[in-house]
Parts: sequence; C-alpha cells; structure tokens
Amino acid sequence: MSPGALDGLVEALRRLPGVGPKSAMRMAYHLLQHDRDGARLLAQTLETAMSAVRHCQRCNTFTEDEICATCRDPERDAALLCVVETAADQAAIERTGSYRGLYFVLQGKLSPLDGIGPHDIGLSRLYARAGEEGVREVILATNFTAEGEATAHVLSETLKSRGVVVTRLARGVPAGSELEYVDLGTIAHALVDRR
Amino acid sequence: MSPGALDGLVEALRRLPGVGPKSAMRMAYHLLQHDRDGARLLAQTLETAMSAVRHCQRCNTFTEDEICATCRDPERDAALLCVVETAADQAAIERTGSYRGLYFVLQGKLSPLDGIGPHDIGLSRLYARAGEEGVREVILATNFTAEGEATAHVLSETLKSRGVVVTRLARGVPAGSELEYVDLGTIAHALVDRR
Repeated sequence: MSPGALDGLVEALRRLPGVGPKSAMRMAYHLLQHDRDGARLLAQTLETAMSAVRHCQRCNTFTEDEICATCRDPERDAALLCVVETAADQAAIERTGSYRGLYFVLQGKLSPLDGIGPHDIGLSRLYARAGEEGVREVILATNFTAEGEATAHVLSETLKSRGVVVTRLARGVPAGSELEYVDLGTIAHALVDRR
Repeated sequence: MSPGALDGLVEALRRLPGVGPKSAMRMAYHLLQHDRDGARLLAQTLETAMSAVRHCQRCNTFTEDEICATCRDPERDAALLCVVETAADQAAIERTGSYRGLYFVLQGKLSPLDGIGPHDIGLSRLYARAGEEGVREVILATNFTAEGEATAHVLSETLKSRGVVVTRLARGVPAGSELEYVDLGTIAHALVDRR
C-alpha cells in the first residue's frame, strides 16, 4: 500500500520549504493520480535548473550566464549599487520597477550565533565591488530584521570608512496602512525619520 | 535576472497542489541556494515514482507490483471490502489500525455536473469484485461530501439489488469534540443515528 517509490517521493517532497508530511503525501497522490505529465515536467525542470543556473560572477544573483542580464544591461545606472540578502529580495525590488541601478546579492545575512560571519556571505567581494570606479552610492536593502539590520550596520561602517556613500532603504509606515493598526515600533521609526 | 531555467522550474512547481506563484518562487530559490542535492533527489524520485508506481489490478490502489501488498496479505479478511474514493483515503483508514479487510479504490467520485459517470470511476469493476464469492460485506467509505454521499447512494442501491450486504461508515460527532462547537448538521445526524 505504501510502496518504496511512493515513500521516497513523499520524503523528497518534504525537502521543499513549507511542505510537511501531509502536504507531501497529498502532492504525491495528486501527481500519481492526476498529473503524471506535470511530475515528469517538474523532474526535468529541476534537473535543468540545478545544472544550468549558477551565480552571476559580478552580482551573485541566479543566472544561466557568466554575467547576468541585469549586470550586462547598458541602460542600467552603474553608479548605484543595491545590496540585498537574497535573489528573491532582488526580484521584489525589480517588480517595483522603480530602481534602475545594479545589485549585489549577499549569500545571506550576518548571524554570529549561527556562526555565519563576513566571509560566509561574501562581504570581501562586495567591498571590492563597491570600491570600483564609477560606484557613487551603495544602497543597503537588507531586511529590516535583527540580522538584516546588523548586516546593514556592519556594511555601513566598513563602506563609509572607505569613503563610499552609503544609504539605507527608508523605514516608515507601509503604503495603504491606517496608523491605528500599524505597530508602535514602525510609527516610532516613522516619527524619527520624518521629512 | 529571471533566466529561462529558473522560470521553467517555478512554472513546474506551480503544478503541485496548493502551490501558488509566491510559494513556487520561494521553493525554487530555496532549492537553488540551499538544497541542490534535495532538488536532484526530488527529480529522481519523481521519475522513479512515475515509471514504477501503477494501479493494483485488484483494488486499484498505488503499488509497484501487479497486485498490491494489502491484496496479497493472507492475514487480511477477504470477506470485508471497503470502498474509498482515493488511495489517500485508504491510507487514512490504514493508519487507524482498526480495519483488517480488503479495499477497493475508486477513481474518484460520481460528479454528473463535471461529466464523471459510473464508468469513469470504475464502478463495473467494483460490482464484479463485490459479486465474487467470499465477499460478505461492502463498507462504503466515500467522503461525507455531497458527491461522496451521492456515490455511496448509487453504490448502495446497485449492490443491494444484487444481494450484497452494504454498510456505510458511521456519521456522528467527531472524537474529542465539544457539542457546543460541532456544526448543527452533524449533531442532527448523530441524533438520528443514535444507538
């Protein structure tokens, strides 16, 4: 009733983020019963992506080329360098359509408690990149979490000491929100950073 | 920034049930960044399961053999035949550890509005199976949804007319629940079916 191949599939599906034992079983049954073509397609695209997708030599984002399309784009403003924690964060900024500079994708965020230091997230490469001629401003767009803020702080101190202009994404009240329902920390920050 | 192989993977992940565009992207980034081995394992297990797992010739559940382990088990009580909508439902009954008979897995449920009739869910094979010597009782364990109930009704009428003893899973108040929070239809059914 629970043959080896089915169990193996359920186990493998559990490695996807956010998928527990019940969802994994539901997915496996669904694919077997209703979408075997989809399952084969998924197997193929997984293989293809894992072998074809690598990191851009310049900005570290995912790409199939040596240098990604964004870094190669002559329309981009090479004077602006936006630092993000992950390629997903970069994708979020790209979707806004309001940034025309280049990026540098960290390999995560500083997290001394987990033993993740400057070297693990590729900071030396970022420092070299930020020191290149033509870079006028580094925009820190790490997350507004404890670790993201700590990473931004370290980056800011180091880059400023090297004479680079450093800015941080604005903190404040999210668009479309009513003050009554915004958390106090956010309102306090918005007051301090008022303009 | 969003290369073909990555887009293809995100699209394919969306074919999993319950996975929308955001989760698919999160899964793809996670696999690329943190678990390429997991992704390759998933690709392999998908391929293996899709080619190895088929339907048991006797009860229709998923198996890698001609006849599944449950149907082959001599310890099972062949006088009892439990009809379920899906292999997942069968797995749920098996997990209770309180049923020692055999199963018949339908290919879904009757749904005239969607054009799914008796032939599509393999009812003729079930009728033949239920008519075999040695089958003493057919237990209808289709879901307690409108379609599951309709399927149970049709099965019950047909099997009874052929002289088969037919029972249905008991309806009633779920174990561990407080009456105050149980829906009215369930309480009404539990009253009618009181014993």
